[in-house]
Amino acid sequence: MSGVGCMNHNREGSNLSTTSNALAAVNSKPRSHSINYVSSDYESLDYDHYESELTVREEKLNGYKTVVATNVIRWLIYFSIAICTAAVGIFIDTIIEYLCNWKFQSIRNCIDVKHSTMECLIIWILFTVIPTIIGCCVVLFMEPSAAGSGIPFVISYLNGVRIPRMTAVRCLLVKVISVICVCAAGLGGGKEGPLIHIGAMVGGSVVEAWWKGFRSGPGRKIIGPLQNDQERRDMMAAGAAAGLSAAFGSPVGGTLMSLEEGTSFWSSSLMWKVFFCAAIAFPTYNAGKNILYTNNTNPSESVHSKSIYFFGKFNENTIYFSYSEFPIFIIFGIFGGVLGALFVNINYRLSIFRMKHIISNRKKLLESVFVAVFVAIVNLTTMILLNNCQKKLEISSFNVVQMFCPAGSYNEISSFWLHTQEENIRSLFHYPIEAYSIFSLLVYCVTYFILTELTVGLNMSAGLFLPSLLIGAAWGRIASKVIHYYSPGIIGNDPGKYALLGAAAQLGGIVRATISLTVVFIEATGNVQFLLPLMITLFTAKWTGDFFTDGIYEMQIKLSGVPILISEPPPLTSDITTEDFMSDTVCAIPHILMVGKLVDILNTTKHNGFPVVASKVCYCRTTIEHKCYGLLKGFILRSQLNVILEHNLYLSPLHDENYYTKLELIRKSTFICDDTLLFQKLKVKEDERSIVIDLRPYMNSAPYIVRLETSLSRTFRLFRTLGLRHIVVINNTNEVVGIITRKDLAKFRLWRKAATMGLKEVNVY
Amino acid sequence: MSGVGCMNHNREGSNLSTTSNALAAVNSKPRSHSINYVSSDYESLDYDHYESELTVREEKLNGYKTVVATNVIRWLIYFSIAICTAAVGIFIDTIIEYLCNWKFQSIRNCIDVKHSTMECLIIWILFTVIPTIIGCCVVLFMEPSAAGSGIPFVISYLNGVRIPRMTAVRCLLVKVISVICVCAAGLGGGKEGPLIHIGAMVGGSVVEAWWKGFRSGPGRKIIGPLQNDQERRDMMAAGAAAGLSAAFGSPVGGTLMSLEEGTSFWSSSLMWKVFFCAAIAFPTYNAGKNILYTNNTNPSESVHSKSIYFFGKFNENTIYFSYSEFPIFIIFGIFGGVLGALFVNINYRLSIFRMKHIISNRKKLLESVFVAVFVAIVNLTTMILLNNCQKKLEISSFNVVQMFCPAGSYNEISSFWLHTQEENIRSLFHYPIEAYSIFSLLVYCVTYFILTELTVGLNMSAGLFLPSLLIGAAWGRIASKVIHYYSPGIIGNDPGKYALLGAAAQLGGIVRATISLTVVFIEATGNVQFLLPLMITLFTAKWTGDFFTDGIYEMQIKLSGVPILISEPPPLTSDITTEDFMSDTVCAIPHILMVGKLVDILNTTKHNGFPVVASKVCYCRTTIEHKCYGLLKGFILRSQLNVILEHNLYLSPLHDENYYTKLELIRKSTFICDDTLLFQKLKVKEDERSIVIDLRPYMNSAPYIVRLETSLSRTFRLFRTLGLRHIVVINNTNEVVGIITRKDLAKFRLWRKAATMGLKEVNVY
Repeated sequence: MSGVGCMNHNREGSNLSTTSNALAAVNSKPRSHSINYVSSDYESLDYDHYESELTVREEKLNGYKTVVATNVIRWLIYFSIAICTAAVGIFIDTIIEYLCNWKFQSIRNCIDVKHSTMECLIIWILFTVIPTIIGCCVVLFMEPSAAGSGIPFVISYLNGVRIPRMTAVRCLLVKVISVICVCAAGLGGGKEGPLIHIGAMVGGSVVEAWWKGFRSGPGRKIIGPLQNDQERRDMMAAGAAAGLSAAFGSPVGGTLMSLEEGTSFWSSSLMWKVFFCAAIAFPTYNAGKNILYTNNTNPSESVHSKSIYFFGKFNENTIYFSYSEFPIFIIFGIFGGVLGALFVNINYRLSIFRMKHIISNRKKLLESVFVAVFVAIVNLTTMILLNNCQKKLEISSFNVVQMFCPAGSYNEISSFWLHTQEENIRSLFHYPIEAYSIFSLLVYCVTYFILTELTVGLNMSAGLFLPSLLIGAAWGRIASKVIHYYSPGIIGNDPGKYALLGAAAQLGGIVRATISLTVVFIEATGNVQFLLPLMITLFTAKWTGDFFTDGIYEMQIKLSGVPILISEPPPLTSDITTEDFMSDTVCAIPHILMVGKLVDILNTTKHNGFPVVASKVCYCRTTIEHKCYGLLKGFILRSQLNVILEHNLYLSPLHDENYYTKLELIRKSTFICDDTLLFQKLKVKEDERSIVIDLRPYMNSAPYIVRLETSLSRTFRLFRTLGLRHIVVINNTNEVVGIITRKDLAKFRLWRKAATMGLKEVNVY
Repeated sequence: MSGVGCMNHNREGSNLSTTSNALAAVNSKPRSHSINYVSSDYESLDYDHYESELTVREEKLNGYKTVVATNVIRWLIYFSIAICTAAVGIFIDTIIEYLCNWKFQSIRNCIDVKHSTMECLIIWILFTVIPTIIGCCVVLFMEPSAAGSGIPFVISYLNGVRIPRMTAVRCLLVKVISVICVCAAGLGGGKEGPLIHIGAMVGGSVVEAWWKGFRSGPGRKIIGPLQNDQERRDMMAAGAAAGLSAAFGSPVGGTLMSLEEGTSFWSSSLMWKVFFCAAIAFPTYNAGKNILYTNNTNPSESVHSKSIYFFGKFNENTIYFSYSEFPIFIIFGIFGGVLGALFVNINYRLSIFRMKHIISNRKKLLESVFVAVFVAIVNLTTMILLNNCQKKLEISSFNVVQMFCPAGSYNEISSFWLHTQEENIRSLFHYPIEAYSIFSLLVYCVTYFILTELTVGLNMSAGLFLPSLLIGAAWGRIASKVIHYYSPGIIGNDPGKYALLGAAAQLGGIVRATISLTVVFIEATGNVQFLLPLMITLFTAKWTGDFFTDGIYEMQIKLSGVPILISEPPPLTSDITTEDFMSDTVCAIPHILMVGKLVDILNTTKHNGFPVVASKVCYCRTTIEHKCYGLLKGFILRSQLNVILEHNLYLSPLHDENYYTKLELIRKSTFICDDTLLFQKLKVKEDERSIVIDLRPYMNSAPYIVRLETSLSRTFRLFRTLGLRHIVVINNTNEVVGIITRKDLAKFRLWRKAATMGLKEVNVY
């Protein structure tokens, strides 16, 4: 094929990704704990290499009974993941509820009893700043990777990229503390997004606990087949679904979200497991909350009472739609898509700004405090300036202040700032049309948009699901009031329908999920009838948003430089062959070599995998004369070589009394995630350097291979569907000529830029 | 690895599958049109080979604008599939409704006015036998592959197996006629299963219509990328989902069913398209039916009126559950699983019996007539013998006869036999507890079980969704009456909850789907609250059923000998390498050879694909000395060679004025489905035999390859996720040593037998 054209393409791809990385790299300081946003830090997971000769031999020893026992244990693990995720969810909810109540009581006491504005402002600022400082400090100084909603990490991990600390228990703890602080401070961040990440981390931690519990004894054989990256990824997918299921009371939606956004590798048995987990988590969470809150709830059934429907039940008799409203649904979708794209665009610019200018921990902390103070001031100022009074409704909650209003009424804007987000979303959906005035809705919508933009990029664990829903519900309610003014017939007295559609449009415009969000909305409202309007709105919002920018998670992933693979091979690439984009600086090692040589190779290169070749010399870079590296024999990972050298496995034959211990070591080595462990300098005794080692029993003797002539789209499909990390490129005579890693392929996700440039003005990125 | 052990395994596998095929093969008579149940007839689809050098060149000519246009056309195709599927659904429904009404009026007239039992019996038999004969004859003499629900075919096709006539318009027509006849005759078969197959066929036909419509002109470039097996398969998956969506009013359930049961290759963009299609089909179908029936419905709101909920709305205020009922849900699941396994087991024995003894068309027709007469006699006899009278309820429909009952009441069992299935299921779910007596429910349940068993295997288009639901709802109602008798507190006056769970358990026990059925039930009842009980029941039913037998579709697929690949590689196979199960009788052809030689190869072998090698001699079977076939150059399909020879492409250079026509020919050749075309004897002029042809421009120059040492599980994953048809096995020096086809892998699905034999008594199969 045309070598010149392809080389150009390749170079262009590198340049583009270099730009993005340059922006990202400024954030990475070696001394701080901050997560490195450099592409080279992310290696893909390895679903291929676990199936080594050793595993095979062990599996053979077991037999079918163990297969069945393994299956039972697998389901038990999924069950325990569901229970643990629900328990963590209940814990977070309870603490937030308690803190918010305390905060509200103090503020109401100050405003309605003491009438001292200055004192109130100070109290309010304290209640906002203290949790913010705590939430920010734990993230900054204990676990920087816990910042943000974590959903981009979950998506990347499920796509097959190795994310450092994705399963660390410390990250889980920091995330829980931080998310509680964000919600208690009343910043513009929700707990639903983080709950998805928390669910995934609970999944990972539970799996590791099971692995450790069965490390020795007869259970070792049973747990053995579960000890690999693939099983862990499936269980983390299930945990993420369980998190969403608990957060929104939406098991089917959670399952679909995990499939739609996450997993690149999919099978029907995985779907069952994820659904099983999600379907256990939801009622557990619900039952737990019911038990905790039975004494607290008022006897009167208000919309704020704990319902199994997160958004409150939408009654079918009052809410219906006619086909003549379809244009309105489409307009809602377009508006939501535009607003969502605006949100993503501003978020992108803010992220770039933060990466460039807010680098040190001190600056990051100061930024958070600034945002917290700003939130408190905005809250109180709007309440004072917008002194709209509103008569108390029967269904109103107690969390409002009277302020300067006459008895029996309350300050309208205070209901927004003093409710929890869940209470707010339910009131926006269910209060009658006269409950809010257009002006206060508008103020709320605009200020909350700004607050959310500011909060989402902070070094705290803040999600944007509920804030987006609140913004959308607010403008949806404004629209319903306008529509009601001009033609009262359409909506009667119930603006909830349009508030719901507005919320869906806004969230869909930001997140760009369609089917899973539709199902989440159906499950959270308990209303199946609304499927069609929701679908129309969400599809329109997605398409409109996609016209302007990427979705927020896609944008964040791009910024972080994670080499994620999109779901389809890019178009117009079937004439690009592996020759054009493979990396030809392979380090191939002979299958029989001296230990000293091996140590030198490991200490001087940074490769993660090495093709094993039938050759006497070790080439780490071919000269122009030598176009290839020798006949391919197999493939071995750095982690496996590390274990062999560290535990001196070359000193004794493979089959001795410690057979199982060795086996365990080698297998565990395939999922070492810690780079410091992986790339530490190895040392062997001087006299052992001349021992000859045969790598053949340890290596993967049948790695996936492609020929030089294979097209990009075919290689892409191999990587994406099989979740590969490396693939060896061979020539016509089975000699190694190169290697392709995930990063070589991830460059091509920029094709959309080229495609859109041909059609319209270039995007913001 | 251990060659002996593997050979044993291999041989055992062959023996097992041979038994099943021997049973199946008796059905295949070359003269009749009947579908051949021999494994070798099913070839897998080819997602790999479309990407030939030629496609690449064409794609390059187009550019990004065409990519966008193609995308727009793609969505338009999905839209038209949804509309067409809904239209066909409406057509079927309307005709069935009309015929059933006519039948009922005649029978009621006879029983209640003329009081002549003998005359009624004759009328009833005529109304049953005539449609049965029509429905059976169209299938037998026009399109034998239209028999049965067709779901096994859909599953196999989506799994990647080429099913002959899957997209033929004649098959679609025959299926529609046959399904109308089954429902009008009142046999124990539903229209929902066939609607899924019909949806898939509509998808296939619509796609082909689009392909034909754009065959020439500038649209050719736009439609080009859509003209391949992969796109067609995606569109047929969407059509199947649209069919289920229309049948049960369940778009999300349809999408999930299509994913859970069907597609082996999955991506989030496919999920969107399938959901889009399903979500359009449902409201279209609904709107169409509303328009047609607006004049017919009674003004009073009865449960029989056309509701958007297929099962009728389940009201949340009357139906609820407590956690103490969980054991009951589990018992329901176990009972449903056992009954379902019984159903599958009987069905299996009946199928074997039919394959052995009912072979000729005459016998098949006689069998159908016998079943039809039996149905009519059973219906009338039970009505006469079980002269239970029941007071007319306010919500009762008109479709009941008074018979020997006093005025104002009706013969209880007649309501079962004279309702349509939809009416029956709604009455079983929604009538108050006193509406049916235990005895008549029991009679209905048992007789309908028998009738369904008899009907499902007939040569007509009968599904088992609704019959299973009816059987389950009947015993669920019996259980509710028993529970109500002993503790009236639990269910109050509403037995619908248990009828619903019984229906779910029964269907789940037969079909073994979990998540999609759960969602179908939620959407069809309009009640989200019931998710947990449904899930518990369905999971228990699935696990219980799986303990005894396979699901009905799995069993039918096994019987038909389709080489389907299960979702996970079988366990304990990672030490089996390709060497042990590959086929070493490859026919490798040199890349440059004489036309005469090529023709001879094609005429004397039955292979579908040929590795192209760098060798001067053509080996079709290696001798013991020659262990390999030569250096691998590429791969070419029989269909591509056929086109080259038929259109004399070897006479002119590739790039001339007819470039596009040739391109079209070659590409179309990759999805020729007709075996008679594919394997017809080729003829070339004697003087053209010596022309030398270079296959390199036509072949696939980078086919997927595996090495001899690759394990079965790895090869399995390659086939399953990439939807491959052949994979070439090479040795250490890139020489062809064998080939693996889907059939070589499909043998291993019998592992479960071995696994269960180790634990308990051997299964029925």
